[in-house]
Amino acid sequence: MRKLYIIGIGPGNPEQVTIQAIKAINQVDVFFVTSKGEAKNDLTQFRKEICERYIDEPSYRTVEIVDSGRDPTIDSYASRVEAWHQQRALIYEELIKNELQEDECGAFLIWGDPSLYDSTLRVIDQVISRGLIHFDYEVIPGITSIQALAARHKITLNGIGESICITTGRQLSPGLISNTENVIVMLDGKCSFKEVLDKEVEIYWGAYVGSDKEVLLSGRLTETRESIEMARSSAREKNGWVMDTYLLRNPSARRP
Amino acid sequence: MRKLYIIGIGPGNPEQVTIQAIKAINQVDVFFVTSKGEAKNDLTQFRKEICERYIDEPSYRTVEIVDSGRDPTIDSYASRVEAWHQQRALIYEELIKNELQEDECGAFLIWGDPSLYDSTLRVIDQVISRGLIHFDYEVIPGITSIQALAARHKITLNGIGESICITTGRQLSPGLISNTENVIVMLDGKCSFKEVLDKEVEIYWGAYVGSDKEVLLSGRLTETRESIEMARSSAREKNGWVMDTYLLRNPSARRP
Repeated sequence: MRKLYIIGIGPGNPEQVTIQAIKAINQVDVFFVTSKGEAKNDLTQFRKEICERYIDEPSYRTVEIVDSGRDPTIDSYASRVEAWHQQRALIYEELIKNELQEDECGAFLIWGDPSLYDSTLRVIDQVISRGLIHFDYEVIPGITSIQALAARHKITLNGIGESICITTGRQLSPGLISNTENVIVMLDGKCSFKEVLDKEVEIYWGAYVGSDKEVLLSGRLTETRESIEMARSSAREKNGWVMDTYLLRNPSARRP
Repeated sequence: MRKLYIIGIGPGNPEQVTIQAIKAINQVDVFFVTSKGEAKNDLTQFRKEICERYIDEPSYRTVEIVDSGRDPTIDSYASRVEAWHQQRALIYEELIKNELQEDECGAFLIWGDPSLYDSTLRVIDQVISRGLIHFDYEVIPGITSIQALAARHKITLNGIGESICITTGRQLSPGLISNTENVIVMLDGKCSFKEVLDKEVEIYWGAYVGSDKEVLLSGRLTETRESIEMARSSAREKNGWVMDTYLLRNPSARRP
C-alpha cells in the first residue's frame, strides 16, 4: 500500500522541526513540492535545507507540482478557492498514481502546521473521496508561526482564562477587536491592523518568524503601526515576498 | 549571567519535541520541576523520558518546586490565579538565586507550548519586574495539543478563510458556538460540550493526545456526546487524571 505523509516543518527555523517529522522524512521516497508565488524560492530552499540536514541516506526523488493558481474570473473567494482545490485534487491523484510505486512512501512538507490555513489536507480528502487510488496517510504536526511569534516576543497568547481568536486579514474587523481580548492575524497582505483605532490595543508583530530574515516589532498599536508598515514594506522589497503574523491584544475588550 | 530556558515539550509524544528544544535541554544544569495535581506522576515521567532520551551527557540537577496551589478562599477566579502567580514569583526568585550559579543554565519544561494556557512566562515576568535577580531567558515553542489533535484526526482547524476561536470550558457558551465556525476548547473539566445543542455541530475530541494513552472520538455532537463523556470518565478513572481538547465545528455559524 502506498503511504503519504503530510508533514509540518515549522515556520522557517530548521531547528523547529520535530523528531517525529525527521523520522518520517527519512522514510520518504518521493517529495511532492507545491510552492508557488513570490516565496517560492525561499520555501524551496528551506525544504532543501531540512532534507539535507536531516536525511541520513539521501535516495529520494522530488516531483514538482505545477500550480495553476486560482482562477481570477471566479467572483466569490470561497468558490475560487474550491475550484482551485478540485483542480489540485486531479493533479495530486495523477501524480500519486504515476510517481509513487505501490510500496513507496510520498510526502508533502508543509510550512508551519498542516492544520492551519493550509489546504493540502482538504485536497487529499478530495483525492480520497474520488476513490480512484488508494493509500494510507499520516499527518505530522509542526510548530506554527503563531507559536514562534509568541516565543520570540516571550509572551503568552492569552491572559488568565481568556480566549484567543485566530483569523485572517480579510476578516479582521473593528467589532472583532472590541469583543476579543486576543486576536491573531495571519495571511494579511493589506496591513489590516491600520483599520484598528482602539487606543488601548497592543500589537506583537513578526515577519519571517524563526528564520534568519526575522523582523519583530511590538508596542501600542497607535504608536507602532507606521513603523510596522514601513518595516513590512521594506522587508518585502528586500526579499521579494513577506509572510507576517501578529497578535492584537485588547485589554479593554468586552465579551459579547 | 544566569540563563533560563522556557521549553515547550509538546503534548505527550516524546517524538513531538523539536531539535531546538533538544539542543536547549542539553545545555541545562538545573531543571525546575513544577508539576501538581493528579497528572503529576505522568508529567514527571514524561519529562524524565525526554531527558533520558535526548540528553547526551546527563549531569543535570533537578529542583522540585512545591506548589501551594490556589487559595480557595479568594472568590474571583482571576484574583485567585493572580495571587497564586505572585506567590510563585517569590518562590521562583528564591530558587533561581539559590540553586543556579551565576554562569549556569536553568530550564522549565512546559507541556505543550509555553504561550498557551500556561503561566510560567507570566510568573517569570513578575520575577523580572521585581528586579532583585538578573538573568537572560529564552522561550522555545512546542507542539500544542491542538496541533496534535488536528493531526490525529487528519483535519484542518479552519474551513477556507474561516476563523478559529481557542477558549476554555469555562467560557464556552451557546452564543459563542452560534457565531463561530471553529471553536477549540481546552481545560474543560466539566464536559461543557454537553450544553451545546445545535444539531449541525460536529466534534473532534481527544484525550492524552499524542501519548500512548490517547483516546480519539469524533462525529456529530448530538450523536457522540454521550460516548465522549463515558470515554472521558472511564479514562479518568483508569489513569487517575485526564487532559482533553476538542474542536467544535459549526457549519451554519453566523458571524456577528
